[in-house]
Amino acid sequence: MGDCEERDYEYGVILKNPNIATMEEDVLYHISLSTGTHNLKEMFADVKFVCMGGTPKRMKSFAHFIQKELNIKLPTGTMLEDISKHSYRYSMFKIGPVLSISHGMGIPSVSIMLHEVIKLMYHAQCKDVTFIRIGTCGGIGLPGGCLVISKEAVDGIMRPYLELHILGKIVQRPAILDLELARELKTVAEEKLSNYNTVLGKTMCSYDFYEGQGRLDGAFCNYEEEDKMAYLQKLSEQGIVNIEMESLAFAAMCNHVGIKGAVVCVTLLNRLEGDQVNTPKETLEEWQHRPQELVAEFIKKRLGMN
Amino acid sequence: MGDCEERDYEYGVILKNPNIATMEEDVLYHISLSTGTHNLKEMFADVKFVCMGGTPKRMKSFAHFIQKELNIKLPTGTMLEDISKHSYRYSMFKIGPVLSISHGMGIPSVSIMLHEVIKLMYHAQCKDVTFIRIGTCGGIGLPGGCLVISKEAVDGIMRPYLELHILGKIVQRPAILDLELARELKTVAEEKLSNYNTVLGKTMCSYDFYEGQGRLDGAFCNYEEEDKMAYLQKLSEQGIVNIEMESLAFAAMCNHVGIKGAVVCVTLLNRLEGDQVNTPKETLEEWQHRPQELVAEFIKKRLGMN
Repeated sequence: MGDCEERDYEYGVILKNPNIATMEEDVLYHISLSTGTHNLKEMFADVKFVCMGGTPKRMKSFAHFIQKELNIKLPTGTMLEDISKHSYRYSMFKIGPVLSISHGMGIPSVSIMLHEVIKLMYHAQCKDVTFIRIGTCGGIGLPGGCLVISKEAVDGIMRPYLELHILGKIVQRPAILDLELARELKTVAEEKLSNYNTVLGKTMCSYDFYEGQGRLDGAFCNYEEEDKMAYLQKLSEQGIVNIEMESLAFAAMCNHVGIKGAVVCVTLLNRLEGDQVNTPKETLEEWQHRPQELVAEFIKKRLGMN
Repeated sequence: MGDCEERDYEYGVILKNPNIATMEEDVLYHISLSTGTHNLKEMFADVKFVCMGGTPKRMKSFAHFIQKELNIKLPTGTMLEDISKHSYRYSMFKIGPVLSISHGMGIPSVSIMLHEVIKLMYHAQCKDVTFIRIGTCGGIGLPGGCLVISKEAVDGIMRPYLELHILGKIVQRPAILDLELARELKTVAEEKLSNYNTVLGKTMCSYDFYEGQGRLDGAFCNYEEEDKMAYLQKLSEQGIVNIEMESLAFAAMCNHVGIKGAVVCVTLLNRLEGDQVNTPKETLEEWQHRPQELVAEFIKKRLGMN
């Protein structure tokens, strides 16, 4: 592992790439940071919680919410800034020990961000970091507005690993989430947010929103309602409680680098009852706030604030 | 196919989904449009060219560029508006017969947008539509700034199809691009943009930016420089001239629905010489404008404007 193991990284991020330690400059292209132009240790060494979700809007709103929850005052005349704004790809905000970052939609998009944020944690010499994805999902047998904490992730054919093509070969990485962390989040939900329905369960991660999730309303569909229902029922019997599009890569990458990761999603609909998301915007926004509330309570607990 | 084949769609979009024609409302959730709230035919029936690329910024800049190139004047006191701004996921601009839409990064992200835009073309009864992806890529044996028009797309293990998991089964869709359209674009490049190096070639589409493209600079890398070079050399021998992250789904979905599609990318670096994108921003921006210039010349030619 070269240089990186010789330093003091007792609880730090050990990259599984010996090349990074010997590079003169490391350009984190898609988050618009670089070891050559930024003092990453000075900027990010105090980060303990990396929270991520699909849209820049949601993660900006989470940044403001967590600022309020953690009672963090910014210096007079300053405001939160999108640290990665020059990338035009992801948005990143820092509020004390919390990073709030958008990851776009789907496995490739979240994976680019994770590679670069994991390297950021390494360069900044962050220690004892927890990654949490705050997402939206379709519920299987759960109505809209439920909180789902993933205990494991599988792909569309129920395989519990992320498949990559590396140098022309197929490589499989186990998509393992930290069960202890998941349970800790569940306990926080029970203690602090008992008015919400919170479930610990298995998550199916799809590469596709329409056919990949058995929807009848995409541009393509060559199966019938009853085939779809039989499939969703089968998922339910195998313990799947929700479907989303990033958990497989998130779990596999956190596990591969040894960072504790959790996925907390809110259901936008019960897929046993329909395909289209046609709940009013205001309700959807209230629901999307629920994972943020849970993660805020979790962070406050970890920081000894409640 | 139900209702949709009974209407007058001589050159229109025939969905491969009979359900859409009988739905009371179709919510195109991720582009923030719906048959229930918008008169899609009135808004979009004249669209002939759907141009797409990664970032909202690039597609907004393309919208303004094509407006100038096509000499389209907006009514006094109006400006281009992001039609999908309420989705917070994709940006969409309309300039006469041209739609300019962002698709984010990676196959899942482009596929969600394509499902919904194909349905949009269907609802709006658009006819004789051409889809073009305007992207960035890594070159194999090509320096930065080259234009690559894809003649076919393959995945990371050289398979010329998109693999989906549908209702728990593996489905493969041929990733076929329209060769005639690709050649037409090449001819336009030769006639109008002869100062740029333009290549017609095979494109490898990866689900990953780092290991999936043989990079040495991700958070993970368990191979050596010489393994990477041997791999890229092998790609080159098999006719691959560039690597990007969306062409496989773009080609497979256009082919599956019968829409003519082309992929035009500019190389940001020669992968035989390095991994990191560290060319100055100004040069990168000039390069990223080149596919836009080619597509503008192509559209002008199609519209009989040159």
